[in-house]
Formats: sequence, structure tokens, C-alpha cells
Amino acid sequence: MTSRTRVRRLPEKASTDEAVLHAILDQAVVAHIGIVDEGQPFVLPVACARDGDRLLVHGSTGSRLMRQMAQGSPVCATVTLLDGMVLARSAFNSSMHYRSAMILGVAQPVDDDLEALRVLTDHLLPGRWEALREPTRKELAATLVLALPLREWSVKISDSPPEDEPDDLDDPVWAGVVPLRMVQGDPVPAPDLRFDLPAPVTQA
Amino acid sequence: MTSRTRVRRLPEKASTDEAVLHAILDQAVVAHIGIVDEGQPFVLPVACARDGDRLLVHGSTGSRLMRQMAQGSPVCATVTLLDGMVLARSAFNSSMHYRSAMILGVAQPVDDDLEALRVLTDHLLPGRWEALREPTRKELAATLVLALPLREWSVKISDSPPEDEPDDLDDPVWAGVVPLRMVQGDPVPAPDLRFDLPAPVTQA
Repeated sequence: MTSRTRVRRLPEKASTDEAVLHAILDQAVVAHIGIVDEGQPFVLPVACARDGDRLLVHGSTGSRLMRQMAQGSPVCATVTLLDGMVLARSAFNSSMHYRSAMILGVAQPVDDDLEALRVLTDHLLPGRWEALREPTRKELAATLVLALPLREWSVKISDSPPEDEPDDLDDPVWAGVVPLRMVQGDPVPAPDLRFDLPAPVTQA
Repeated sequence: MTSRTRVRRLPEKASTDEAVLHAILDQAVVAHIGIVDEGQPFVLPVACARDGDRLLVHGSTGSRLMRQMAQGSPVCATVTLLDGMVLARSAFNSSMHYRSAMILGVAQPVDDDLEALRVLTDHLLPGRWEALREPTRKELAATLVLALPLREWSVKISDSPPEDEPDDLDDPVWAGVVPLRMVQGDPVPAPDLRFDLPAPVTQA
């Protein structure tokens, strides 16, 4: 933690436990990457996967975001898992349950593209890498895989019941938490699928 | 659309239809806000709601993000709805279904805090504003409500089946889309709830 990642608002929700950071990243499939271009921030969603003490992202070599990251621009990668709506007796005390991680730093191209793509694919689509053909040399050349070290980061977790003003407890309204979670729907086979095969299970 | 919001990667996925932008924002409860501080981007998740042609966000007057936004810092607000995992016959062509909106601009404090908080609350927790007491003067003074105009924005939608190389179609692997969606779990009443009331329905 540095002064840039010290949680100032609601510091009781902060965690400095690396295992908690890892657990959040391991449940996420998308990170929101912030980058600055001529003073203007841009925030883009990208697929991500943790690999040890770094966060992997990948994209096209034609992507402005990826190229700018690869050139050493400072970035912020934020991962947010929305876990529920917190309904207090007042609008003011209403909030959300979430687990959120923010990582600052500079991303670097990985040494071993193929291995990093395996980690990414196996995170996003467990078991899928094994089932698929290897990437071609052309595909590898068109893909930029970057790693952001998990060095400067903060984590914030909101998972408590609503905290209301004592005077509000007699208001006759329901209060509590409505949990939210991501679920899979029925797989939709590709129109050009030529085989009768079971659909695999995915991460999100 | 400006040169800053022209979609360069996969432009066929871009939409300039305002109704599409509105539909994305109206389904979102969280935006990722990017802001720059001394050259470093920061990306933070905040609750959001569309109000006509502006995006409302709110937070504590003690929040660094909110204060910096209110002071006229350029921001980027990105909303991403993850709709599914796209399983192609190759890792390279695998991707995700998503609807994503990026808004650039400068946020301004709203004229009518109370009305803006009503819009926010009614979006996040439909019908809840009616049921709750009005915010106190102290609560209003502690809350900053900002509006980001929907003027400079881009939208990107990925909703197609996997597009594979012709040579890959004979690989005997399942291909298609596994849809994802957010669902509510069973409401958890607050431990200090004093009334036997049904839980309300929330937005997300």
C-alpha cells in the first residue's frame, strides 16, 4: 500500500490481505483499465486473469489501449464484483455489497505469450485450452499479452447489513440485503456447429 | 461522436444510436469512473443512474473522486454489461458478449440535489424513495450529486455467435455462447428489522 492506494473513504472496509486481493481477481473475468491520453482518462473493459503476483490482460496489437499500456503508460486496473443491494431505512444509508480491487502500475509485455494465453483462457473458460488447437504464429503475432504487477493495490469490501440511524429503526419499511450473483443461462450452440457435443462450463 | 470516441477496434460493433446508449445505462447500477491525478489514472466504481441526457452519480463530499470531479477534472464513465462467454473453436476467436458505453466529459453538481437523489434511488431501488423518509438537511449537505452530460460517448455491443476460421469448423469441439446474467438471491432481512414486511424488488 502507498499513499496513492490508501483507502480514505470508509477505511474499515479496506483489506491489505493479499489472499483477499487474489480471491477477488480469481472470481473476475473483466477488469476496467484506466489510461490517460493527453490529460483525458479513458476506461475500457478487458478480459483478465491473475497469474501469481500479476494480472494478465490481452488484446489486439492494433488496440490503442494495449499499445499505450505496452509503451509504459501508467494504468489503473479496477475489478468490481457486485454482490448485492443494501436497503437501509433511509436513502442516505442505502448502499451496495461489493468486493473491489484497484491496482496501479505499469504493464509489461510477458516473456511467454503462449503460456500467458493458456492461463488467461483456462481462467475465463476452464478446461478449454486443452480442447482447442494451439494458436497459430499469425494469431500470436496479432495478440499483445501484458502483465500488471500486483504491487501497488487496494481492496475494499462491503458486506455488512444496513447501518441505520437509531431514530429510523421504527420506520415500518423492510431493511436488509438483496444478494446479487451472476449465473449462466442455457448454452446457445453456434449455428455452424457440426458436432453433437455437450457445452463446457465457463468461469463467470 | 468525436475522434476521441470513435470506435477503432471492431467498428462493426459500435452503435451511435442514442436509444441504445440509454438502454445500456438504464440497465446498469455501477459505472467505472476514471479520473487523472498527477498523471496517474484512477478508476473507481460508483452507483449511477441516467436522468434524461445526463448520467447521475453521487458520493460523499469527503470523497476525493467526487471532489475532483466537481472541480471540473475531465472524467471517463464506463458502463459494462457482461452478457455471455463466446466459445469459438480457437482461443484467438473466443470472446465475450457485452454491451458497453463510454462517456467522456466534465461532471457538474446538479441544481436540484433532492430530485437527483430521487432519480438515483428510484433507479437503483425502484419504488424505494416513496417508502423512505426524506433525506435530512445534514445528509444532503454530506452528499455530492454530479451529472455527466451524455454528449461525447461511444457504445460497443458484442452479441454475435463465434466467428471461426473455416479450417477450424471440423475440429470436434463445442462452440457457441454461454449467456450470463445477474440474478437476485433470497433477501436477507437486517438483524435489527422490527417489522414483518415483504422485501422489495431491486433493479440489478
